[in-house]
Amino acid sequence: METTNGALNRKLRMGLVGGGSGAFIGRVHATAAVLDNRAEIVAGALSSNPERAKASAPSYAIPDDRAYGSYQEMIDTEASLPEDQRIDFVSIATPNHTHFEVAKAAIEKGFNVVCDKPMTFDLAQAEELVKLVEGSDVVFALTHNYTGNPLVRQAREMILAGELGEIQAIRSSYIQGWLRTRIEESGQKQSAWRTDPSKSGAAGAFGDIGTHAYNLARYMTGLIPEQVSCHLKVFEEGRQLDDYGHAVIRFENGGLGTVTASQISHGRENDLFIEIDGTKGAIQWRQEEPNAMIFRQNGKPHQIYTRDPNAPHASEMHKAACRIPAGHPEGYLEAFANVYRFAFDAMAKRASGEDFEKRETIYPNVYDGVDGMNFIQQCVASSSEGGAWLPLKHEAARR
Amino acid sequence: METTNGALNRKLRMGLVGGGSGAFIGRVHATAAVLDNRAEIVAGALSSNPERAKASAPSYAIPDDRAYGSYQEMIDTEASLPEDQRIDFVSIATPNHTHFEVAKAAIEKGFNVVCDKPMTFDLAQAEELVKLVEGSDVVFALTHNYTGNPLVRQAREMILAGELGEIQAIRSSYIQGWLRTRIEESGQKQSAWRTDPSKSGAAGAFGDIGTHAYNLARYMTGLIPEQVSCHLKVFEEGRQLDDYGHAVIRFENGGLGTVTASQISHGRENDLFIEIDGTKGAIQWRQEEPNAMIFRQNGKPHQIYTRDPNAPHASEMHKAACRIPAGHPEGYLEAFANVYRFAFDAMAKRASGEDFEKRETIYPNVYDGVDGMNFIQQCVASSSEGGAWLPLKHEAARR
Amino acid sequence: METTNGALNRKLRMGLVGGGSGAFIGRVHATAAVLDNRAEIVAGALSSNPERAKASAPSYAIPDDRAYGSYQEMIDTEASLPEDQRIDFVSIATPNHTHFEVAKAAIEKGFNVVCDKPMTFDLAQAEELVKLVEGSDVVFALTHNYTGNPLVRQAREMILAGELGEIQAIRSSYIQGWLRTRIEESGQKQSAWRTDPSKSGAAGAFGDIGTHAYNLARYMTGLIPEQVSCHLKVFEEGRQLDDYGHAVIRFENGGLGTVTASQISHGRENDLFIEIDGTKGAIQWRQEEPNAMIFRQNGKPHQIYTRDPNAPHASEMHKAACRIPAGHPEGYLEAFANVYRFAFDAMAKRASGEDFEKRETIYPNVYDGVDGMNFIQQCVASSSEGGAWLPLKHEAARR
Amino acid sequence: METTNGALNRKLRMGLVGGGSGAFIGRVHATAAVLDNRAEIVAGALSSNPERAKASAPSYAIPDDRAYGSYQEMIDTEASLPEDQRIDFVSIATPNHTHFEVAKAAIEKGFNVVCDKPMTFDLAQAEELVKLVEGSDVVFALTHNYTGNPLVRQAREMILAGELGEIQAIRSSYIQGWLRTRIEESGQKQSAWRTDPSKSGAAGAFGDIGTHAYNLARYMTGLIPEQVSCHLKVFEEGRQLDDYGHAVIRFENGGLGTVTASQISHGRENDLFIEIDGTKGAIQWRQEEPNAMIFRQNGKPHQIYTRDPNAPHASEMHKAACRIPAGHPEGYLEAFANVYRFAFDAMAKRASGEDFEKRETIYPNVYDGVDGMNFIQQCVASSSEGGAWLPLKHEAARR
Repeated sequence: METTNGALNRKLRMGLVGGGSGAFIGRVHATAAVLDNRAEIVAGALSSNPERAKASAPSYAIPDDRAYGSYQEMIDTEASLPEDQRIDFVSIATPNHTHFEVAKAAIEKGFNVVCDKPMTFDLAQAEELVKLVEGSDVVFALTHNYTGNPLVRQAREMILAGELGEIQAIRSSYIQGWLRTRIEESGQKQSAWRTDPSKSGAAGAFGDIGTHAYNLARYMTGLIPEQVSCHLKVFEEGRQLDDYGHAVIRFENGGLGTVTASQISHGRENDLFIEIDGTKGAIQWRQEEPNAMIFRQNGKPHQIYTRDPNAPHASEMHKAACRIPAGHPEGYLEAFANVYRFAFDAMAKRASGEDFEKRETIYPNVYDGVDGMNFIQQCVASSSEGGAWLPLKHEAARR
Repeated sequence: METTNGALNRKLRMGLVGGGSGAFIGRVHATAAVLDNRAEIVAGALSSNPERAKASAPSYAIPDDRAYGSYQEMIDTEASLPEDQRIDFVSIATPNHTHFEVAKAAIEKGFNVVCDKPMTFDLAQAEELVKLVEGSDVVFALTHNYTGNPLVRQAREMILAGELGEIQAIRSSYIQGWLRTRIEESGQKQSAWRTDPSKSGAAGAFGDIGTHAYNLARYMTGLIPEQVSCHLKVFEEGRQLDDYGHAVIRFENGGLGTVTASQISHGRENDLFIEIDGTKGAIQWRQEEPNAMIFRQNGKPHQIYTRDPNAPHASEMHKAACRIPAGHPEGYLEAFANVYRFAFDAMAKRASGEDFEKRETIYPNVYDGVDGMNFIQQCVASSSEGGAWLPLKHEAARR
Repeated sequence: METTNGALNRKLRMGLVGGGSGAFIGRVHATAAVLDNRAEIVAGALSSNPERAKASAPSYAIPDDRAYGSYQEMIDTEASLPEDQRIDFVSIATPNHTHFEVAKAAIEKGFNVVCDKPMTFDLAQAEELVKLVEGSDVVFALTHNYTGNPLVRQAREMILAGELGEIQAIRSSYIQGWLRTRIEESGQKQSAWRTDPSKSGAAGAFGDIGTHAYNLARYMTGLIPEQVSCHLKVFEEGRQLDDYGHAVIRFENGGLGTVTASQISHGRENDLFIEIDGTKGAIQWRQEEPNAMIFRQNGKPHQIYTRDPNAPHASEMHKAACRIPAGHPEGYLEAFANVYRFAFDAMAKRASGEDFEKRETIYPNVYDGVDGMNFIQQCVASSSEGGAWLPLKHEAARR
Repeated sequence: METTNGALNRKLRMGLVGGGSGAFIGRVHATAAVLDNRAEIVAGALSSNPERAKASAPSYAIPDDRAYGSYQEMIDTEASLPEDQRIDFVSIATPNHTHFEVAKAAIEKGFNVVCDKPMTFDLAQAEELVKLVEGSDVVFALTHNYTGNPLVRQAREMILAGELGEIQAIRSSYIQGWLRTRIEESGQKQSAWRTDPSKSGAAGAFGDIGTHAYNLARYMTGLIPEQVSCHLKVFEEGRQLDDYGHAVIRFENGGLGTVTASQISHGRENDLFIEIDGTKGAIQWRQEEPNAMIFRQNGKPHQIYTRDPNAPHASEMHKAACRIPAGHPEGYLEAFANVYRFAFDAMAKRASGEDFEKRETIYPNVYDGVDGMNFIQQCVASSSEGGAWLPLKHEAARR
């Protein structure tokens, strides 16, 4: 379970953007970042409202003098601090429409970035962000956090090693129920911006969680998408963005994938689920029971792989993503923290002047971000054309 | 658990077509038919090969003199027997391409019919069969057997009573793995005809099991389909019919449905699964664990309904479909036998000269059969046109 | 799935004792006996009340002239019928206190017996019954029906073949909730006799279901018991027999077992569960999900064995106990019918003059019955002595 | 999710004892303590070997000058530091035999203590520790971490509020497999001290995990134990302490409990499981799937309570123990951190000069520790007397 910042031999310093009162994901970033005791939260611009931003600082134990009124102020001021005091990275936990500007400002000052998903407001911003990252030396991680689950990584390694044979079918879905009624009308902060096209972007459910389901399929299989046909629905009357949707994907190798996202399924909490069919075996994993994965092969008993860093059959990345022994459930925060864990490895190397991987990272990065934004754009376009098949491969996306 | 043939006061007499050695579904029909001790198998035409037909009779305890060499011989001879000896109904458990001719012959002699699914070889035959049934007085039941599960009926009654509100989304899938390799090449009887377009019809997986998933969605919700967009795949090279497929359905009320069928998913046995989202509640049911159904509503604990004829919350048709108390698992054969149980009620009434319901039956009937054949035809057509949206509503289908 | 009566080439004829209106297990015997179409119910003494006995006959399709007013009348009359008409076996589905007298009468006339559990009212009767069976030529089967589950047999064969190594610990429990209140006061027939010491015997829950849990442990492992320490409780005030109990068992090989039975656990249906720890592996099986068994070994993924007659790893008795392919759930009735299936094999052999196994039967027999009655007696005695260790090995029990 | 140290307005400072390389629980304490960003690890005595103690400091980001060679040195030195620098609490994560001496030293210097379980080496030490705590002003928390699970607390509150009626039966078990072979012979650190009576105490499995199962039953129900009858086994030849055991408990109210612990069950990971039967309802919870609890009542669908801070039916302590919304799994570390979270509340109050609860704490405390040590002592004694009933109520234990 031990991980350290290696030669750097100090904690990394975090500046958090977002996370003010009523926020969800800001607190998650804060918790995930410190889970391994490799980072400390030293600065924050916790709200777009300067007063609220400062008022929220004590709940993160951020000292008053580094509780900033805006992200610009934080980035500028921190950049002016001595190197041994200023933040190492900026975590962006704001609504989608501000990701790009915060990331851009951080990158331009040389700060590493951990950005929430979907990466930007639209594809154009995402493409621009690829250029910014490539033109810089920063570490850029995107919190498609489900990729941090040890068994997701186990599956990925098994698939990439060919243990499932050729992948032919993927069924990925992400089912929630919390937007079953129009709670956005009641001032509920999480729903308000997610259902507002000026903040969320072109898609609702498909941007918020459909991208996770799509990313998971891509991450686990490496399959290259070719075309998509999508059908988005607004089931809650008066809502402006989709709260349900379904996409069919043709992969380059001839495989067929489906992605379903719902936010209107009564009682469903966070049911991200994936099944992958290969010519030699099949895998099933469910986020709500993340410590087990089922591997099936005709003619053999079904095999339940559990999260188990000591198992002889645990893959390297599975082991490296564990903190505690089998049977001691790890969950959402631990998986989220694994995106940070491996990004920290890169940040520590950068700070120590060592080389680090920028493209083939184990954590999602800017290339996955552009892939996701392309997915959103093409899904929305396909849906508006009645499910027309549109190209889905983006040349900047990881392959 | 007690059920009887009522005023008829005798067992019904069954003539079985199909079921010779190597068969699967013939034995299932035979077992299901006698499970409640309301019928006896007195005659059979167990194979299209006359010698094998007769040789198989002892394994069904069919006396030699009523072990026929062909269905024609059985139907003609039985029709000539005295009324108190001849069969009451013909069960058709043959490959798809012969369903129509056997059913037609039986109906023309006035025999009731229990027919396996899909109902016919193609839609034209199905439409013709509707006319034949409507022009006769026979009971016609179609063994979409999963509708016989008590909890499927519970869900149906809850939905029709409005307990889930308006139904907006349905996700139905039927995942198997047994055709992962081309076992049809090895002489395996079940796979040989199912993968042969001259016997199975226009579709493979979608005809064999996709129709079950579609039927279940229709049966449980009563939603009227409007259009379908379908994508069929042949993943096992050289196979002539689809072994994987996916359809998206637009319902008349604006709802969206998906139907997935696979026969190439390693290790998957018979995973028929359905989730139904309504504005007031959502339901989930899985065939492999048929004695439980999950009902979810935001703000309440998830509720597990179990098969329980004594539960205060059990619906009428749930109770009527049970044989034993809760916790004593019922399964596939019991559900199959429930199609027979309720068809027997109608047959007994007919034999006693009483009225019986022909259209709104609790068991699937000829109207559901034509619905299924229309589904197959339109799915195949849509797929061949790249997933074009085609009409899915058939005027003869139940609504 | 095919099974027949072989050279006998006719159905076996059943005479049912018990099963009148309000009964549970009589209908189960009737259904299980005909499930494979190898037997027909031709006679019955369905109630201890002669009028009710005859009135119940139509619901079993038993002709009036063989609907008897008492078991004595049935056995005597049937014995006087020509050999090609009279019953082959008597199924005893009455309250415990009458099992012995019915079985004795049947055996003395040479009829095979299928007897419900617990075998008799007390141990003395059980020991006497062993002598009666041994002094006769009849087939005697005891419906510890859970032994009929294919995966129970798979586990048994794996254990007897040494695949789990030495068995050291067994945890077996049978948890129900239906006697949580004193429904016996309301005239509910099932509970009335089970809670009445003059009909049920010395134990309540421990006699009714504790014996099943004990039998399952013995059946699956073959371990020989040495001593028992037991604690029985009456949690519903005023009830005369235990509705909860717990026994600790020392096995001869040094192993430790526990048996728990409850009838007062809210909402529990029929949760028979067993875990078996061996030096090389461990097994877990739950009756309410009978089509799966989990086999665990340190250092390997957990393996789910499913009921699958076509699996390469399915044992012989697993295969022989299946009717339908994997994924098509079999349940309580099918398992119950497997006790009949293999008893029928023996009965058919006997009727054909062939040899048949009497001691090492795959179905529970009179030796298992005496084992169970000894278990009840010693548990009741131990409990009344505050959990004193008492001998548990009975010399007539199977080993 | 937000929690803070309130008026104290700074992080609490932690001194960790134990946790050097090869340790498990030290890292868990370290992670749990910082999870809510309310504490920082500022000092450590990470091993009983001074060199290893200091070498381990960087992996906890402990500065060299506060990496101590022994717990005595840490406690003495820290006590001499200015109040605004020195540690607030000592976390004890060492083998059992040293808990008492570390705790004693800490308490005597006025440091709060978070101690791992079982609390001490033997009962006498535990009783002495009660006096030490009562004679001081320190916060003392015992990491029976499973009590930190939100749904354990939900169940506790429901039970204490009478929603299950009178509690009559409890079945609690903790099943592991990691000591199936004598890995202690191979130098595996975790197993070496746990199987060594000079370090572990009088019991092996029963001390290590049996106490957890016992504590959970006591914590959730508040039932007062009266007597225990216990059977301990050493299944791995040559081992000195029990690796399997079973206890039967009579509660004062007439209820019956069972506690089973195993470390030799192949493939079992950390299966702590509890079922509780009350006259009005029953509850089931399993540690390996901690985000769900099943509540059953006769005549109603089974209810699955999920961890859900926003549920109308979530109890106060359930909500207060959550960090993230439903469907985002929390696990072992989060539950562990909840012991810290609520102990931090008390420590912050103490540091701010406010009153704080010492006896009826939501987290396990010294009174629960003495209860556990008494349980171990009486179980070992009962087992050595063949399962004799011994008193189990300790007057210092919580009631």
